[in-house]
Amino acid sequence: MLDDDQRNEIERARATVATTLRPTAPGLEAVMHTPFPVLDHGFIRVVDYMGDDSAVVQAARVSYGRGTRRSSEDRGLIRYLMRHWHSTPFEMCEIKLHVKLPIFVARQWIRHRTANVNEYSARYSVMDREFYLPDREHLAAQSSTNRQGREGQLSEQEADEVLRLLRADAERGHESYRWMLNDPEFGEVDPERAGVSRELARIGLSLATYTQWYWKVDLHNLLGFLRLRADAHAQYEIRAYADVILDLLRRWVPMVHEAFLDYRLGAVSLSREEVDVVRELIRGEHPDRDATGLSAREWDELRNRFDF
Amino acid sequence: MLDDDQRNEIERARATVATTLRPTAPGLEAVMHTPFPVLDHGFIRVVDYMGDDSAVVQAARVSYGRGTRRSSEDRGLIRYLMRHWHSTPFEMCEIKLHVKLPIFVARQWIRHRTANVNEYSARYSVMDREFYLPDREHLAAQSSTNRQGREGQLSEQEADEVLRLLRADAERGHESYRWMLNDPEFGEVDPERAGVSRELARIGLSLATYTQWYWKVDLHNLLGFLRLRADAHAQYEIRAYADVILDLLRRWVPMVHEAFLDYRLGAVSLSREEVDVVRELIRGEHPDRDATGLSAREWDELRNRFDF
Amino acid sequence: MLDDDQRNEIERARATVATTLRPTAPGLEAVMHTPFPVLDHGFIRVVDYMGDDSAVVQAARVSYGRGTRRSSEDRGLIRYLMRHWHSTPFEMCEIKLHVKLPIFVARQWIRHRTANVNEYSARYSVMDREFYLPDREHLAAQSSTNRQGREGQLSEQEADEVLRLLRADAERGHESYRWMLNDPEFGEVDPERAGVSRELARIGLSLATYTQWYWKVDLHNLLGFLRLRADAHAQYEIRAYADVILDLLRRWVPMVHEAFLDYRLGAVSLSREEVDVVRELIRGEHPDRDATGLSAREWDELRNRFDF
Amino acid sequence: MLDDDQRNEIERARATVATTLRPTAPGLEAVMHTPFPVLDHGFIRVVDYMGDDSAVVQAARVSYGRGTRRSSEDRGLIRYLMRHWHSTPFEMCEIKLHVKLPIFVARQWIRHRTANVNEYSARYSVMDREFYLPDREHLAAQSSTNRQGREGQLSEQEADEVLRLLRADAERGHESYRWMLNDPEFGEVDPERAGVSRELARIGLSLATYTQWYWKVDLHNLLGFLRLRADAHAQYEIRAYADVILDLLRRWVPMVHEAFLDYRLGAVSLSREEVDVVRELIRGEHPDRDATGLSAREWDELRNRFDF
Repeated sequence: MLDDDQRNEIERARATVATTLRPTAPGLEAVMHTPFPVLDHGFIRVVDYMGDDSAVVQAARVSYGRGTRRSSEDRGLIRYLMRHWHSTPFEMCEIKLHVKLPIFVARQWIRHRTANVNEYSARYSVMDREFYLPDREHLAAQSSTNRQGREGQLSEQEADEVLRLLRADAERGHESYRWMLNDPEFGEVDPERAGVSRELARIGLSLATYTQWYWKVDLHNLLGFLRLRADAHAQYEIRAYADVILDLLRRWVPMVHEAFLDYRLGAVSLSREEVDVVRELIRGEHPDRDATGLSAREWDELRNRFDF
Repeated sequence: MLDDDQRNEIERARATVATTLRPTAPGLEAVMHTPFPVLDHGFIRVVDYMGDDSAVVQAARVSYGRGTRRSSEDRGLIRYLMRHWHSTPFEMCEIKLHVKLPIFVARQWIRHRTANVNEYSARYSVMDREFYLPDREHLAAQSSTNRQGREGQLSEQEADEVLRLLRADAERGHESYRWMLNDPEFGEVDPERAGVSRELARIGLSLATYTQWYWKVDLHNLLGFLRLRADAHAQYEIRAYADVILDLLRRWVPMVHEAFLDYRLGAVSLSREEVDVVRELIRGEHPDRDATGLSAREWDELRNRFDF
Repeated sequence: MLDDDQRNEIERARATVATTLRPTAPGLEAVMHTPFPVLDHGFIRVVDYMGDDSAVVQAARVSYGRGTRRSSEDRGLIRYLMRHWHSTPFEMCEIKLHVKLPIFVARQWIRHRTANVNEYSARYSVMDREFYLPDREHLAAQSSTNRQGREGQLSEQEADEVLRLLRADAERGHESYRWMLNDPEFGEVDPERAGVSRELARIGLSLATYTQWYWKVDLHNLLGFLRLRADAHAQYEIRAYADVILDLLRRWVPMVHEAFLDYRLGAVSLSREEVDVVRELIRGEHPDRDATGLSAREWDELRNRFDF
Repeated sequence: MLDDDQRNEIERARATVATTLRPTAPGLEAVMHTPFPVLDHGFIRVVDYMGDDSAVVQAARVSYGRGTRRSSEDRGLIRYLMRHWHSTPFEMCEIKLHVKLPIFVARQWIRHRTANVNEYSARYSVMDREFYLPDREHLAAQSSTNRQGREGQLSEQEADEVLRLLRADAERGHESYRWMLNDPEFGEVDPERAGVSRELARIGLSLATYTQWYWKVDLHNLLGFLRLRADAHAQYEIRAYADVILDLLRRWVPMVHEAFLDYRLGAVSLSREEVDVVRELIRGEHPDRDATGLSAREWDELRNRFDF
């Protein structure tokens, strides 16, 4: 998971204690720099952060001025801000993560544009022989109802063959890569061959190859990321990363974390028509689906949600 | 390069003429929807645009108000804006491109964050058996001076072997993909096997596989993209795309294109120390490198630039 | 509202018909360039646009690929995208507006950062003697429950005095401005005085002074703007602009407009706790507020929303 | 400059020392929370920050990977990154400032969109009676060559009258504001009058009125801000803020600060044509302006720059 240089760097970082006049989040300090494993070779570790629960409150109170300074207490204010979709106070906190992840996960992740990224460059440097292979339990068939989902297990025999193919292709791709590079990094060099430039040799590598990056994001955009990627519809592999980040969120800004679960992850948005239906249901009426304007899928989701 | 659906869609689009009260760029209208080939299977085509040279001028004149309305003529104003790094007037134009490109190029491209993207999803849909193979002339060795560059040709024999490996690995990867999917899209299906979900089967594909997307960007950010990607230090493959876009720029906003070549692509930035050196050179003096504070590399670049 | 130059420019623009191969929105073409009055001296007019309902659909279908191309029809797909908070397909459309608005409204407006702006510059040019005075019906007292709201009418006498003060201060401010500038733009000049620079003379102008700008925004961010600014909690003056834009939205992208009303403006978000309460209510139970974890305000809002 | 609440908050913050495993910038810690005065009533103080010179280096080295880890030393790498317009490593640092500033300065400042802002809200809270009055030495006439500049002093008599007008209008505006509000915050209340809502009463205030905000920005965008606002062409009043921030930059990231002065603030960009001219000058030739393609203004600037 980590190479020696990284292990040394982490040890040094964890031994370098400084004093600061900045707001500090003790829950996060406890795990600073420590890598949390994700998937088979990946990890997430916190490299830096800025702000805490009180920084969100402080920013909100600048806006509201003297008028509200006395009244609200912090937890209530944070819940109020979350409930009413305020964004700017949450932008006042930042977190910087060092992440090791397969390239196909990186491609989904990078679509969250309002963040800062420095990725390991395969033009400059060589790529290690590390690639993602799913656990057997995550090898699933194509969902028949959700075009982008999984559903049901594969037979043991089919799973065996899938894993064999994924492994063999990735290994062969990296073997070709090493041959093309002809670089001392990978052992003996053939002095007769020039070796292909790094930027070209890497184009045949598999999307399952691991890359790594520093990713920095403000708390508002991090919540946006989590809302999509910690959701049951996200691909399992990126969800595994989101789940670790969700846990880091709890350590970093516990009040924001709680409000996020209540008002975002666990929340439900009802359309104008659905509000009407729910109102009728509460009155004890039995609305007819055809009259509501809801599609069959919306109707089913609503029934499942509210058990009627 | 194009499938049948795309060919039909393009024909329909090119036959649908409408009247509009919007500013129109005749040079770009002439090639609207037409795909320009790039690399072995890629293309770029203009799907939509907004604004022209005069839209840049119009936006600048809102800022400057009555005072300047009469005086400047358009070309001079555009050159002035470019020279002084004004950005907001250039943001008033947009272009939307449909691009087909290898995944490793897409990974470089997407780092330009201030743009809008809708990419073909390999979670929803299956990937065609199309991957990039470099032309023999672009197969080069690793540069010894530039860690991210190419330099010198490979021997014919080494080049043959490189191409064979790239092709074989990519083909084998797509074969495994098809086997894992077990999808009627690719011919006969084995009824005994469930087939792996699309989102998983694709993780073993090669970075050379073609994807496609709609990419929309404003003119200011497009110039930023071109400044980096039409530069000699950009990887050849993304530069091939940038060169086509540079030609589209000339058709779309010819005055902006001219100013961009003069004040950006062909321009030179001198540091404080380099300005001092140039001043001495003009006075006929012979500055000593050690006394200038320039690094050896800066000194060499300066000598090459100004032939002294 | 408009000066002569602007009237001429609009006439010219409305007379310049061109043919185009771009997607065209006939409903919006009908009102291109025409200023819609807002408040006492303001206006909004469409200067340019890019895309229509079908551009949203087209972008979504690139993502979903062949698989979905045949199936869904446009309206259903747009409603699906809106319901599930997809953002990128809506980013594929742009609109550019010329807006004249009081400075205090501009200050609220500009907080929507993902947009492009070129504003009339009071450093370059002189400001006209135009400032906003509220209609009598919009002169209201401070709300006692909502710290940022209005509530109840003023007495006729108090309203008279408020309007007198606002007018007198704004007029006196502009008079001082003109005296300080000593500029031929405003009539005779005192040759004995140098006149203050524009950038300084303007600092004493009132926040009610009108400015103008070109504002360009993509459809996704426009919906975000409308969600906040067409809301009942927005200050009346910016809501007046949002209402006009909402009407332009209907002309431009009627399907998106309809989905936006159903899934955003008319929608309700229920927290995790509120979902539980609604479930109990539908079962015919009578949940006790104290047991729900809802605050008094949340409880009241829920009761009002669902009439229980 | 500060009210009592703020003085207390600052004292508390400066007394709250914590230990942290985060990178720490000692030069900045020394002035954390301390307000630096700007203009007559404004200030800037550092509320939080993230990263230091080494964070820039660290991010760059992730990109370049093992290959470069050993070689370059930090200062050289930072200068290399600045020289070649790398942006992402500089995005890895953040700073959060509490700023008190006149509204007309805030209006220029906010045009830098890639930043986070929480501003004091005049809808929620009341505005103090504080407004900016220029020092006599900054009262200048309109420049005759630069439409947005100042030039030459006013006569003492004209300056007196200008200051009298600015003061009188601002005071009268705030007096009207207080009357309209009829709020206990400003002393005795007239029980017969309802008082106007805050959001309306403030519209007549002057653009010279002070507001305040928390402003958070990454280092890359901060350098962009400084490049424009610490420039001689920026309006004096915003430059006064930029100068203080430039000094904070020196305390925070001294290597970045040095490279910024050399490669940005003190640098010169030469167009393609200007490069040709300079080359001829170095060869000892005497290029003819008409033959160079340079405008008269470009020619003069070049002569001044290089003393020929």
